[in-house]
Amino acid sequence: MSEGADVTAHPAPTGLAGSSLQSGLGFQLLAADPSGRARRGRLTTPHGAVETPAFMPVGTAGAVKAVTPAELRGLGAEMILSNAYHLYLRPGHRLIGDLGGLHRFMGWPGPILTDSGGFQVFSLAKLCAIDDGGVTFRSHLDGSEHRFTPELAVEIQETLGVDVAMVLDECLPYPCSEERARAAWTRTLHWAVRSRAARRRAGTALFGIVQGGVWPALRRAAAADLAGIGFDGYAVGGLCVGEPKEQTHMAIDEAIGELPAGAPRYLMGVGLPEDLVEGVWRGADLFDCVMPTRHARTGWLFTATGRLLIKHARYAADDRPIDAACGCETCRTYSRAYLRHLFLANEPLAARLHTVHNLYYYLSLMRRLREAIDAGRLAEFRTDFYRMREGGEA
Amino acid sequence: MSEGADVTAHPAPTGLAGSSLQSGLGFQLLAADPSGRARRGRLTTPHGAVETPAFMPVGTAGAVKAVTPAELRGLGAEMILSNAYHLYLRPGHRLIGDLGGLHRFMGWPGPILTDSGGFQVFSLAKLCAIDDGGVTFRSHLDGSEHRFTPELAVEIQETLGVDVAMVLDECLPYPCSEERARAAWTRTLHWAVRSRAARRRAGTALFGIVQGGVWPALRRAAAADLAGIGFDGYAVGGLCVGEPKEQTHMAIDEAIGELPAGAPRYLMGVGLPEDLVEGVWRGADLFDCVMPTRHARTGWLFTATGRLLIKHARYAADDRPIDAACGCETCRTYSRAYLRHLFLANEPLAARLHTVHNLYYYLSLMRRLREAIDAGRLAEFRTDFYRMREGGEA
Repeated sequence: MSEGADVTAHPAPTGLAGSSLQSGLGFQLLAADPSGRARRGRLTTPHGAVETPAFMPVGTAGAVKAVTPAELRGLGAEMILSNAYHLYLRPGHRLIGDLGGLHRFMGWPGPILTDSGGFQVFSLAKLCAIDDGGVTFRSHLDGSEHRFTPELAVEIQETLGVDVAMVLDECLPYPCSEERARAAWTRTLHWAVRSRAARRRAGTALFGIVQGGVWPALRRAAAADLAGIGFDGYAVGGLCVGEPKEQTHMAIDEAIGELPAGAPRYLMGVGLPEDLVEGVWRGADLFDCVMPTRHARTGWLFTATGRLLIKHARYAADDRPIDAACGCETCRTYSRAYLRHLFLANEPLAARLHTVHNLYYYLSLMRRLREAIDAGRLAEFRTDFYRMREGGEA
Repeated sequence: MSEGADVTAHPAPTGLAGSSLQSGLGFQLLAADPSGRARRGRLTTPHGAVETPAFMPVGTAGAVKAVTPAELRGLGAEMILSNAYHLYLRPGHRLIGDLGGLHRFMGWPGPILTDSGGFQVFSLAKLCAIDDGGVTFRSHLDGSEHRFTPELAVEIQETLGVDVAMVLDECLPYPCSEERARAAWTRTLHWAVRSRAARRRAGTALFGIVQGGVWPALRRAAAADLAGIGFDGYAVGGLCVGEPKEQTHMAIDEAIGELPAGAPRYLMGVGLPEDLVEGVWRGADLFDCVMPTRHARTGWLFTATGRLLIKHARYAADDRPIDAACGCETCRTYSRAYLRHLFLANEPLAARLHTVHNLYYYLSLMRRLREAIDAGRLAEFRTDFYRMREGGEA
């Protein structure tokens, strides 16, 4: 690997050769792990800096479910993710813009990245039609018909005033033929070019999204296509949708191999703790996933030794915390027996306490990954991580 | 009123002349309002002191819904209420006892009062039979059959290790004939005597409960009966169940007139902010009600000028806090527009932020009532309180 040679402080390519807009985004590479592609970095945005690799808690509708911004900050979150599709439908991006933007609306002063809504249009909404101009769909809330274009997706995100916007992309199911994946990529690439041209707001950076399913050559070509256009950062999308792990890893490797080393790389919607470890190992800088928050609400708790399902009868009289090694408020204060009681009694506090724990686990894992890279011992950390999990459920 | 003459620091009557058990409870009268029966006091318990008049947030199942003990403390709560019926059914009082008691189980280090479960047996469970020995009912959770006796109700609460236990009482619907109310009181009085005799644990005080519906002579007799037996404190129960406010006030006045001035008086399940003001005015020291927490979850918010229903369309773009005069974290951080969005999107954060606001309102109201009594100007405070609400919804 020659990537170590790229480790230097320099601004990210602005990707805006044809534009006078300033993205407001900077990315410094601080260290690289000697045994792979992993790197330490610092993303700077108009709303503050983010140490990478970083996990972004998901606040789909303008709130991370059950926790406050102050709590997120205390848990170690530096950047969060929200969603253009959801906020466009409710309460409306213009309302949020009129009230001073998403940061002010939701009381989160740090950096925000929004997904464009491409994934939601293709997964959550009832799809009506896709054509080269855009995508027409019915709202999952009330069935009303809407149309997203690459330009509107940028406009929505700029109106929200977020730090990083994502291009609109065509998302594919798994499995999907190479032919269909290639056709979708052709469309997504055109949309990416239009998205870049649609930028109007200084201070909102734009990331391109590498698609291409599980087809190595297509993933490589897609990454090279986007790098050729030039974006403020690059996402790898369409993974962890049911494909085998080997294909996930292959697709990440193929895409990242073609992306400029000096730009941030965002692995979208990923994933389980082991997926974060593998993503970092393979050179990704940013991550998001609903798992820590969504699983929290179903009583699925993350620990160093694996998952713990709090509803199990074996925890009924268990006076221990979820994870004796965990320093979160939930583990410092409550027993498994109490948390199980809250969960079975459907107490709203259960979701909150479980969310605090799971986010603490995810954010601490990222901190330890950063420390491991800083210390040049990520390979050892990764080995230890898997060894800890061999014993099964706590 | 001669009650001012009773204002002096002295221990509460223990009510345990026939027992060597120490209740652990003390009650000091600190000040009395010159224009009525209102008084300032300090209740001391094995888990700390409570400035009275005080409102106890309701943690029915061992948790105040959506908020943590640390948050409750920050909001100014000094004592909370939980429920023997609910905890007996789930997770079981013996489990909680085995794990060190309710304070430790739920992480609340301050005083706890539990209702005996009488009200729940008569309102929530499917009643099977009531006899002089006790009450047989089916669980609202799974239909299983159970029997509560006065002795078991004490045992459950002592096993939970709470600071104040309530006697088991027969609760009546409204309306209810005087004859039926009188028969129920005869039974409740016998149960109260048995409850007192059933005490086994030092450190758990026992309060009697005045019943008697809306019948003045019966309320007086009931209060005198209990005072004659002697309890650590006295509750007035069976109010705010549908009767006109004048009858509520009459029942409070009749009962309190017969209760010993030196013992704490607890007005059960009361009520709206105006009910708290009237209860304090009439000489009650302790209050509890699900309204601030339950209404929070339906978007009913309390303000100095009256209620605010956050779902209303008029708040869609309203950038103001719920109440500009309020100092709670919710009002210091979020707009009505944002809270309305969270509520309509069914975000779990809505219940939490609304609960924080409503409890802050209730607990601040109690603090201001205490300050008004200390300053000898409760009558003025009461007048101002009603004048503020004349304008209707915020």
